[in-house]
Amino acid sequence: MKNRAEAPVFHTAVCAEPRQPLSQQENCIRSFPARLAHKELGMESKMIRKYRIGTPFNTESVTADIPQEKGLPEGGRDHVLFADGGRTLLYCLSEGEIIYGLGETVRGINKRGWDYISWNSDMPNHLETRRSLYASQNFLLFDKAYGGEDRCFGLYIDAPGKLEFDLGYTDYSQVRIDLKENDADIYILEGETPGEIVTAFRTIIGRSYVPPKWAFGLGQSRWSYMNEDEVREVADQYRRAGIPLDSIYLDIDYMERYKDFTLNGETFPDFAKFVSEMKEKGVHLVPIIDAGVKIEEGYDVYEEGVRNGYFVKDENGDPFVVAVWPGRSHFPDVLNSGARRWFGDKYSFLLDQGIDGFWNDMNEPSIFYTEKHLNEVFGELDEFRGVNIDIGRLNRLLSLVGEMAQREEDYREFYHDADGVRVRHDKVHNLFGYNMTRAAGEAFRRNRPGERILMFSRSSYVGMHRYGGVWTGDNSSRWEHLLLSMQQMPALNMCGFLYSGADVGGFGEDVTPDLMLRWLALAIFIPLFRNHSALGTRRQELYAFGPETEKKAAQIVRLRYALLPYLYSEFMKAVRDSRMLFTPLGFVWRDDMRARETEDELLVGESILIAPVVKPNASGRMVYLPEEMKLVRLRSAEDYEEEILPAGDHYIRAKLDEVVIFIRKGHVLPLAKAAENTVGVDYGSLAYLCHGAVPEEYELYNDDGISPAEF
Amino acid sequence: MKNRAEAPVFHTAVCAEPRQPLSQQENCIRSFPARLAHKELGMESKMIRKYRIGTPFNTESVTADIPQEKGLPEGGRDHVLFADGGRTLLYCLSEGEIIYGLGETVRGINKRGWDYISWNSDMPNHLETRRSLYASQNFLLFDKAYGGEDRCFGLYIDAPGKLEFDLGYTDYSQVRIDLKENDADIYILEGETPGEIVTAFRTIIGRSYVPPKWAFGLGQSRWSYMNEDEVREVADQYRRAGIPLDSIYLDIDYMERYKDFTLNGETFPDFAKFVSEMKEKGVHLVPIIDAGVKIEEGYDVYEEGVRNGYFVKDENGDPFVVAVWPGRSHFPDVLNSGARRWFGDKYSFLLDQGIDGFWNDMNEPSIFYTEKHLNEVFGELDEFRGVNIDIGRLNRLLSLVGEMAQREEDYREFYHDADGVRVRHDKVHNLFGYNMTRAAGEAFRRNRPGERILMFSRSSYVGMHRYGGVWTGDNSSRWEHLLLSMQQMPALNMCGFLYSGADVGGFGEDVTPDLMLRWLALAIFIPLFRNHSALGTRRQELYAFGPETEKKAAQIVRLRYALLPYLYSEFMKAVRDSRMLFTPLGFVWRDDMRARETEDELLVGESILIAPVVKPNASGRMVYLPEEMKLVRLRSAEDYEEEILPAGDHYIRAKLDEVVIFIRKGHVLPLAKAAENTVGVDYGSLAYLCHGAVPEEYELYNDDGISPAEF
Repeated sequence: MKNRAEAPVFHTAVCAEPRQPLSQQENCIRSFPARLAHKELGMESKMIRKYRIGTPFNTESVTADIPQEKGLPEGGRDHVLFADGGRTLLYCLSEGEIIYGLGETVRGINKRGWDYISWNSDMPNHLETRRSLYASQNFLLFDKAYGGEDRCFGLYIDAPGKLEFDLGYTDYSQVRIDLKENDADIYILEGETPGEIVTAFRTIIGRSYVPPKWAFGLGQSRWSYMNEDEVREVADQYRRAGIPLDSIYLDIDYMERYKDFTLNGETFPDFAKFVSEMKEKGVHLVPIIDAGVKIEEGYDVYEEGVRNGYFVKDENGDPFVVAVWPGRSHFPDVLNSGARRWFGDKYSFLLDQGIDGFWNDMNEPSIFYTEKHLNEVFGELDEFRGVNIDIGRLNRLLSLVGEMAQREEDYREFYHDADGVRVRHDKVHNLFGYNMTRAAGEAFRRNRPGERILMFSRSSYVGMHRYGGVWTGDNSSRWEHLLLSMQQMPALNMCGFLYSGADVGGFGEDVTPDLMLRWLALAIFIPLFRNHSALGTRRQELYAFGPETEKKAAQIVRLRYALLPYLYSEFMKAVRDSRMLFTPLGFVWRDDMRARETEDELLVGESILIAPVVKPNASGRMVYLPEEMKLVRLRSAEDYEEEILPAGDHYIRAKLDEVVIFIRKGHVLPLAKAAENTVGVDYGSLAYLCHGAVPEEYELYNDDGISPAEF
Repeated sequence: MKNRAEAPVFHTAVCAEPRQPLSQQENCIRSFPARLAHKELGMESKMIRKYRIGTPFNTESVTADIPQEKGLPEGGRDHVLFADGGRTLLYCLSEGEIIYGLGETVRGINKRGWDYISWNSDMPNHLETRRSLYASQNFLLFDKAYGGEDRCFGLYIDAPGKLEFDLGYTDYSQVRIDLKENDADIYILEGETPGEIVTAFRTIIGRSYVPPKWAFGLGQSRWSYMNEDEVREVADQYRRAGIPLDSIYLDIDYMERYKDFTLNGETFPDFAKFVSEMKEKGVHLVPIIDAGVKIEEGYDVYEEGVRNGYFVKDENGDPFVVAVWPGRSHFPDVLNSGARRWFGDKYSFLLDQGIDGFWNDMNEPSIFYTEKHLNEVFGELDEFRGVNIDIGRLNRLLSLVGEMAQREEDYREFYHDADGVRVRHDKVHNLFGYNMTRAAGEAFRRNRPGERILMFSRSSYVGMHRYGGVWTGDNSSRWEHLLLSMQQMPALNMCGFLYSGADVGGFGEDVTPDLMLRWLALAIFIPLFRNHSALGTRRQELYAFGPETEKKAAQIVRLRYALLPYLYSEFMKAVRDSRMLFTPLGFVWRDDMRARETEDELLVGESILIAPVVKPNASGRMVYLPEEMKLVRLRSAEDYEEEILPAGDHYIRAKLDEVVIFIRKGHVLPLAKAAENTVGVDYGSLAYLCHGAVPEEYELYNDDGISPAEF
């Protein structure tokens, strides 16, 4: 039985001075009104205009009923020029104009100066020159406040196929968006500020997913913990080291030969019992679910899928054969409501054994190869025998074998049955991960109505934010990915993805102790806080680097738990109010060129600015403060230093075991004592760090952490 | 006939005030003494100690006769602990201690915090997590001046096989150098300052290569300009755009089917005439030379090599078959003096047609596959037919075909005849590029004694710096590689590689206009100044981005030519005095922690500090000045602004067509008017920008640009 004693409540802190306990019971000021009146918002003003190009597939990313404009705007009347019948959008950028948005993509907060392609891709090497990652979130926000006319607007292109965004790549002053073959709904959003535009957009796409509170604790993952004992070892080591922990992740090897909704009976002989044992230690197990279903006679999921026609089909109507981890597989047709319901219900196999969280993977969907193409490859291989393989032939050979995965041609070879409408996959490619996660999310609401289930996904599209969070995929243990993991947050927030985060320490390649510590010092502010690493890489658990690093890591992670009351409150308010959790400085200080160009600082919630050290061998960094702030150098909830700093540039030192934050004037930061896990965080003994404010000015939220958040 | 009218001379500028012409003839103060008395320096003090482990191969990287210490130091007596008979070196790092050096490697100026492997590798993806690039320069410089005991020392490990440098990777406070199987000469170098240690090291390894002066001009390259007309078009476009140009590079397609020392007669029908035509336009052609010699009956180079036994051999004594561009090929045995002389003389095929510069490529040596392994691969491929290829089999298939290149096993399959001594290649792997370039350099001295020939190489080892420069290989059009190209310079300088540089704009991937301009603004300070890009990437010639970018690029490149008197003088003085051309701030301000940690600023020569903008969408950057300096914002030799700035942090704006430099107090910067090429730079009308100094305090160097530099 879950503890439902605590109703979800927002408090306004009432302690007269910092560090005085706040009783939750006395201070329940109000609960959230259900105020997401989508229809009204869209209709009552011309804040949002919708143009339709052709007859687009209904992605259901927008939940509000926005009336469609008649025709297209002529010339550049509605900010952008609709050329080529609206299939090419043109826009001329001003000097200093910023382009925010585009969700989970590479490069900085300002997306200007590169060419991005919306095409969900399993691409593990997140170079600054990548055009596509795992997600497509086609929302842009243009802001030219500085140095001229003050104007911002939002642009959302609801089109689920391939799109190209030339955002000053060919010419630094030109935007060219090519819808390719896509039909689309195009939304132009007006607002006085970037924040207003984000709220307008978020309001029409529906409220963000809320995970259970324990999902705000630290999770430890690796590809893979192979059996019960390895999992126990992780939990025990964390406990020994005094590092709080809330969850351990199970990667693909917990299954029987990579078959969804099975368990390896040898390595996890009594799974339900083991789940229970770990829960008693305060640790939730979170298994992975893959998109592909193995083709194997006698495997119930495969057989049911075939019997009911629930898999995507080739042009002849036969289930389409792809290969993923288990080899030959089929994809569930998640665009079909029957298949979605069926696949979603399958998660109960694990829910029924006590599991309360999942991560959906490989759902771009990733294809290692198709059976059809594999046969072509082997057919051609013989041509390389007995001839001189010069560079021309060698390149052909290498691409033949090396480029069997993620081939665009393969995505044109299969079809969905979207409730009676046959759609070729490439036309709706970017919707797969969204709808796989929706399948699960809808099932959880049916099958576990009184409970929040953790769910996040690798691939996504706008709309999926209502059903789960995202992690940003297979990053690497690189300093540049530490910075990237920070820069991706605001763009995800704009599209409603609040419960999100990158693999802390980096998934691929080998992390170093100093990189791990610096990464932690950022990641403690990010909702999805999971240390994850790949097969074959250096061990990355926080106790794996020796006692010195372990001690420092413990100190930083404990700060996460001290910050939990703040982070959880800010998360919930960002959900409730459809606003950003991570805000670029340029959103707030729009006419401050320095703030606009700051790419390595963020506001987290309403009260604090963070400026993590993101470079090796640095004992500190320069920090730009757009206004006076209070520096707090945190070592623990009890051990910290404060200093008021004026606006301007400051060199700020930060040791490897310190976290430096900056409290905005007029704001409050509640701080708890650290705990072993999220359940142990004591809201009864909060301290309040204030800068020109009193604790009453802070709106604190708490609940039982499990019941659906009804505000 | 070359113009020998101008003797090489150093001037001390004598103009009484800035911008007054300086007559060269009147002001020849002195020429360089031949003062590289290697033996004396090594013997007269205990500045340098040499320890021998086993019986190392004589790499000839050190030219001085340093006596060998008897035995090894016990305990940690000589800075490092010689464990395992000297095959493992251990050292404990202090807080704030910096490790400089290691030549051409990834990451920052401070190499601490990563694990590097000396193993020359053709690896085009220069990630921060790469362990090996194309070169091995095993020189390290430890400096712990800040925050405690003041101590620095140098460490050079002369061992031509694989070495591993764990420089705080496993444990941030520990250095562990693993010589693997190598015998080695280990040198410990003492000095009061990092600069002294560099000079000591450079003195024992011999004077750096000096290219012709025209090689300091801009070069334009691409893989490949396919015929005469394409080359003419490049030259004409540069002329039309008003962008100075001194050379155009010919990549592999100028040859007949990638055969060294041949010409494609269809695309370059009268090469000598064409070379002459281009020289009349002020443009030198620079062809590439590859390490591998194609196996083809009737091809003279192949046949001569086989006949004389000049190729490396397999264990049976037959020429070893590798594959590179042309397919099946042999490598010349450049460790054999006869083969070296033969191969070097081959360059005369092109010298005799008027060519006066080359670049040596693929000389790690890169192996696309070996014939032996290819047969193994095809043998195993059949096992994949008709079975379910799950992830295990798929990974095997992908690595089987995808990892045929640069296999370590292949480097253990062939042998050198080092003048009578048979050596398995892997034991001396890192010497190949060095000795290929030495073959050319020795031949040039024999065959063109009165002339400097441009020569630089992709692969290198300490010692090669006497025969040619290096370019840093196949980088990419990434902002992080712009920064990397700057950070690599000091470490190359330490090992004598003064004529060096990265491909400007990036070789692989697609450059953007803003990245190209920012890269130029750095690269105008770097001796090897070549814009180069790969097959299949966006066109990268400076006229290819439209008129706006072209104009800005012209403005920046013209500054290179305005700076030429300074850059050429500083280069020559760095050669003469065995000192750095690019100096990290920490070398000069050793007790200034901020200077020590500055990774994106450098001193260039004696007078100026540079701090280029290395990030996108930035209208400027923070610059740390360790002392008062004079900012000069250059748009041309005639159009600039000056401002004295105090020590400290400054936000400095820099537009895309501006170059901001900082003149050190007590220093002088000569500035010429721009010109169409290096020949046109007028030393008779120099201006002198001074900061607390007078022009007389500047030692200016000039010569005819072609005669060997005898100072």
